[in-house]
Amino acid sequence: MEPEKTTRSNNRPFDSLRPFSLRRNIQPQAGASLLMRAGNTEVICAVTIEEGVPPFLEGKNQGWITAEYGMLPCATGSRYRRETSGRAARSQEIQRLIGRSLRMMVDLQQLGPYTLRVDCDVLNADGGTRTAAITGSAIALRDALCTMEQAGMIRTLPTILPLAAVSVGIIGEQTLLDLDYVEDSGADADGNFVMDNQGRWLEIQATAEKAPLEDHQFEQMKKLARKGIRELLELWSS
Amino acid sequence: MEPEKTTRSNNRPFDSLRPFSLRRNIQPQAGASLLMRAGNTEVICAVTIEEGVPPFLEGKNQGWITAEYGMLPCATGSRYRRETSGRAARSQEIQRLIGRSLRMMVDLQQLGPYTLRVDCDVLNADGGTRTAAITGSAIALRDALCTMEQAGMIRTLPTILPLAAVSVGIIGEQTLLDLDYVEDSGADADGNFVMDNQGRWLEIQATAEKAPLEDHQFEQMKKLARKGIRELLELWSS
Amino acid sequence: MEPEKTTRSNNRPFDSLRPFSLRRNIQPQAGASLLMRAGNTEVICAVTIEEGVPPFLEGKNQGWITAEYGMLPCATGSRYRRETSGRAARSQEIQRLIGRSLRMMVDLQQLGPYTLRVDCDVLNADGGTRTAAITGSAIALRDALCTMEQAGMIRTLPTILPLAAVSVGIIGEQTLLDLDYVEDSGADADGNFVMDNQGRWLEIQATAEKAPLEDHQFEQMKKLARKGIRELLELWSS
Amino acid sequence: MEPEKTTRSNNRPFDSLRPFSLRRNIQPQAGASLLMRAGNTEVICAVTIEEGVPPFLEGKNQGWITAEYGMLPCATGSRYRRETSGRAARSQEIQRLIGRSLRMMVDLQQLGPYTLRVDCDVLNADGGTRTAAITGSAIALRDALCTMEQAGMIRTLPTILPLAAVSVGIIGEQTLLDLDYVEDSGADADGNFVMDNQGRWLEIQATAEKAPLEDHQFEQMKKLARKGIRELLELWSS
Amino acid sequence: MEPEKTTRSNNRPFDSLRPFSLRRNIQPQAGASLLMRAGNTEVICAVTIEEGVPPFLEGKNQGWITAEYGMLPCATGSRYRRETSGRAARSQEIQRLIGRSLRMMVDLQQLGPYTLRVDCDVLNADGGTRTAAITGSAIALRDALCTMEQAGMIRTLPTILPLAAVSVGIIGEQTLLDLDYVEDSGADADGNFVMDNQGRWLEIQATAEKAPLEDHQFEQMKKLARKGIRELLELWSS
Amino acid sequence: MEPEKTTRSNNRPFDSLRPFSLRRNIQPQAGASLLMRAGNTEVICAVTIEEGVPPFLEGKNQGWITAEYGMLPCATGSRYRRETSGRAARSQEIQRLIGRSLRMMVDLQQLGPYTLRVDCDVLNADGGTRTAAITGSAIALRDALCTMEQAGMIRTLPTILPLAAVSVGIIGEQTLLDLDYVEDSGADADGNFVMDNQGRWLEIQATAEKAPLEDHQFEQMKKLARKGIRELLELWSS
Repeated sequence: MEPEKTTRSNNRPFDSLRPFSLRRNIQPQAGASLLMRAGNTEVICAVTIEEGVPPFLEGKNQGWITAEYGMLPCATGSRYRRETSGRAARSQEIQRLIGRSLRMMVDLQQLGPYTLRVDCDVLNADGGTRTAAITGSAIALRDALCTMEQAGMIRTLPTILPLAAVSVGIIGEQTLLDLDYVEDSGADADGNFVMDNQGRWLEIQATAEKAPLEDHQFEQMKKLARKGIRELLELWSS
Repeated sequence: MEPEKTTRSNNRPFDSLRPFSLRRNIQPQAGASLLMRAGNTEVICAVTIEEGVPPFLEGKNQGWITAEYGMLPCATGSRYRRETSGRAARSQEIQRLIGRSLRMMVDLQQLGPYTLRVDCDVLNADGGTRTAAITGSAIALRDALCTMEQAGMIRTLPTILPLAAVSVGIIGEQTLLDLDYVEDSGADADGNFVMDNQGRWLEIQATAEKAPLEDHQFEQMKKLARKGIRELLELWSS
Repeated sequence: MEPEKTTRSNNRPFDSLRPFSLRRNIQPQAGASLLMRAGNTEVICAVTIEEGVPPFLEGKNQGWITAEYGMLPCATGSRYRRETSGRAARSQEIQRLIGRSLRMMVDLQQLGPYTLRVDCDVLNADGGTRTAAITGSAIALRDALCTMEQAGMIRTLPTILPLAAVSVGIIGEQTLLDLDYVEDSGADADGNFVMDNQGRWLEIQATAEKAPLEDHQFEQMKKLARKGIRELLELWSS
Repeated sequence: MEPEKTTRSNNRPFDSLRPFSLRRNIQPQAGASLLMRAGNTEVICAVTIEEGVPPFLEGKNQGWITAEYGMLPCATGSRYRRETSGRAARSQEIQRLIGRSLRMMVDLQQLGPYTLRVDCDVLNADGGTRTAAITGSAIALRDALCTMEQAGMIRTLPTILPLAAVSVGIIGEQTLLDLDYVEDSGADADGNFVMDNQGRWLEIQATAEKAPLEDHQFEQMKKLARKGIRELLELWSS
Repeated sequence: MEPEKTTRSNNRPFDSLRPFSLRRNIQPQAGASLLMRAGNTEVICAVTIEEGVPPFLEGKNQGWITAEYGMLPCATGSRYRRETSGRAARSQEIQRLIGRSLRMMVDLQQLGPYTLRVDCDVLNADGGTRTAAITGSAIALRDALCTMEQAGMIRTLPTILPLAAVSVGIIGEQTLLDLDYVEDSGADADGNFVMDNQGRWLEIQATAEKAPLEDHQFEQMKKLARKGIRELLELWSS
Repeated sequence: MEPEKTTRSNNRPFDSLRPFSLRRNIQPQAGASLLMRAGNTEVICAVTIEEGVPPFLEGKNQGWITAEYGMLPCATGSRYRRETSGRAARSQEIQRLIGRSLRMMVDLQQLGPYTLRVDCDVLNADGGTRTAAITGSAIALRDALCTMEQAGMIRTLPTILPLAAVSVGIIGEQTLLDLDYVEDSGADADGNFVMDNQGRWLEIQATAEKAPLEDHQFEQMKKLARKGIRELLELWSS
């Protein structure tokens, strides 16, 4: 795949991430919190530490990690209606994805009898909200675990698997890393990838939106995702 | 009422507001948006401008203003559960209050055939979220109307009635302006007041929480509210 | 405020209540019940006595009093739809108001481990249903407590704070006590007041509906409310 | 069936109805209303007259009659919870039964483009609420049709089929007419019958509750129902 | 009633059932299951055996039998919408009917502390789905009880009362046994009958749909029902 | 990946599908229907043809294809509760996946102003229900389109893209094609793949369940999926 010339906003190259950053402690009453930014996308990631586990885990000698994902009404161009009579299917699908990835980060038996609830609320949406939510909330989860250790809630910090997530898409002949909203809307195919710091996959989801995906195109997507996630993993040193 | 000595956090006098401020444009895709801060309380106020009016107003030659109020899960000390199967009674009561006050700000016939939806989402709660929401969203509403005028959606800016809101409470013998969460939880009585810049009331709500309210106590509450709202109205010059 | 001439139905003076009365035992299977009438407004008030308290009070050594408010479908001119898929915001707001007032009537620790559920169902609505509900259910609550004492459920009757409630409104230059539906619909501002038999306020709620409220107007409303509630308190001797 | 001796409350014979009566105009704002009493059972029956028909009947040149059935919280010995998150199956079954019977009373094409909504709300329940609701609401429906004719909404009164309903039960060897709550709770089998003034059946529902029903027992039930309904039809002359 | 000539599909005589049959084990993971066929109507009947009883039966030393009834979306000519936001009134009415009949089959005290859940899901609907569901699920229930005995869950098989159900209708002057969908849609009156193998009734439900039902017509319906159910009871020997 | 010896049920090799087949016309009233079998998994796939399109597509000159996925209560070992108060997140996620794949099969503009609703209801679940649903409903969709052409609803059959789907999992060192329920429950990672008859991907979803996925493992999964789907595509010739 040799992209002739990119027409991305800000002249972004096809294989470049948007600027990303964290701002910690955005909700001081949470167990840990931060604002994850990726371009114009901003997601509030906050962790609540609760004693005890859900009923289906009682007596199983392990903890639990779960996630919820929401969108503030004015996060998008046309107002997003509050999900007050049942969650939207898209929200449920995203929060299941986030939860699965986060549960791979820690041995739940090491965690002990705690439930960590991770809330990801999109303040501003410009594409890639689910991957920004995963990247941000993974770090918020690490922060919460450190807080728990310092507070003596857990004796030793469990082994934590650093991970990050990114989206990749195909528009015509181009494969593009980290789609913004306009790119995402016009993509022929797109995918979301979650990878750990040892280059192993936690989640791969690729979907043909307008055109079936040749195998070599999918391989190129995977390659770009690997590159992007490696860069995002630098946030773990912050 | 002769308060012997105040024991408020930060040595705040009984008749002082907490520091307050606005940060505009927190959600750039909204018609207007800002973050209202009052002490540790932070409320995202954002306005969506929609063409058309709800069915019950069709053919009545007027616009409409309505409000929604929400709480982010980690805004409070113990996690606030998302209202995904029906709104909580408290939320509905608050958003009805906000909506009533905002509709008094503008002649809805001057507004023309538009619906302005005002979303107030509490990022951090430390008492006084409903009054902060009113104060902040009134200014966001003014901002949105200015935007509409500049965009030519309305020919002339409607007359706008500046207003602000504050809470007052009674603890023992003391009457206190602008309660924080700890004060609010322990109050014998409390009230919320909305006033315009001509000293006229838009809303008075006083409730005995632990002890009935002598008339002179209520009058003292009203006096403090007047003082506090006058100071908050300075935000309209920002 | 000197109202020139009143145009109220039945030539009612500006400061007069509508005829009011109680009819007891309208639901003989309840712990106590009555039909409260204020003009054409009729509210069924009935108390259920239950052993035990809600989960959030377990182990706190106190009882609980709560209220529900409903409207029969043909209570109003145009049929009122049953609230079968969630309560209306207005109903919730009213029942929260009723419940707060009733809980101020009795020391909940004296009540002992009982839950008193007070149902207020509007048989006929002609304005002032929420204040009629408070006035009527307060007396029904007293009746239920007497029944509990006679039945030996509680050893001694708790101290009971007699209270009553009334609405007041402003139409043009006139302040009017105890609005009927037509008056309420046309009011510039209105308020609901709950007062005890010592002249202390339990609840003050005043709202500008069409025009902001000058402070002297609000004071006049409060004065009329005091007069009306004193008269309504005579029902406690019945 | 030879009942040796009856043990019914008030020494009621096995084939006697409880005292029954109507009180009209209990909800003056309705198109027609009455309170139907059968023993201690009291049901508010009220009719709303609406222009137009439901979508599934548009263009079919006929009117519509429908019924809703509800229970006030203190109508029963243990408080009946409001059906605020969906109707109970029992309520739906009863209101379908009422609606079917009422629609047989009038030729819906003669009715013209109106919807008559009949609300049956149980004020006090002591057995037989569904049959009391049918008997009372049939007469309220007739009253509403007369009002429509007098108001010129319909040119000529449609032909009206007088009907009434009653319950019958079997306890041991006895067949009993018009069960009260205690009898109903202990019945081996019971049935509800709706009949017109020409002795024709509109609805027959018989259910074995504790013991299968011999055919001769069922025939005896039908015979008693016929007797009771003939007496109830006298209400049509009131 | 002397039907001149029948015009039923397949030249079916007025008093004939459609061909009926069972196919067992359609859902091998259930406690017992079968596909009940009556003409083109097909109902999946399956029993789940659960330990324990619902809360309202705890400590009462008996078991419980309950039924649910559903319709697959493509069972009918126009797609049947899934009941995902509350059960339809018709479904609830039918499953209450099925449950009542099944609970008459067995002494619930003999059953012991088990809950048998019977699911009736209509694969194809051509009239008579509720009676096919009763006939089929009664046999599936018997099968489940035999399984429980063989598995040692219950020591001795409880006495089982064989039963079956059928519909009957009136079209003009004809009384017809076992209506198909076209017949049912055009019937003046119809009924559903449940009878045991001793000729005793468990349920009789007859409804005038277009014309009131003369008593002799109803008696003819009952006679045909008896004939049909006797034939259906032969399934118990299969 | 060198699987030493397989321990799959029926001695199935690691790269073998379970026996699969179709049975057409299981719901004769649908536009097209079939029962898809893969091992013990059985899914009813049925298509409803409706005129018109959903509101969001009006005026856009295209048709629409959508899917719903459900589970019969006794399809699984422990009874599956009906989703009567909102769809489960898992069901929604699956039906979104099915719908996306089916919409890639046909040019929606060629389809014309029709909505094709595809219902996938699991009669028996033994792993791989979502991939069986995709494989089966794709063929049912083709059948429905042929029916539409024969009925003259569409002039020419749109170009149809044959596709099929399969699951693949990793257990320890083994990569296994087409997991049954027991295998799926114990898998370290699993994936679902949808591919067309030209070897192009429509959907790839791989998830680490117990252990992160090395890239070579994922590549092996993809290879097995390709093999399995090629075999399943033979169903298109049936």
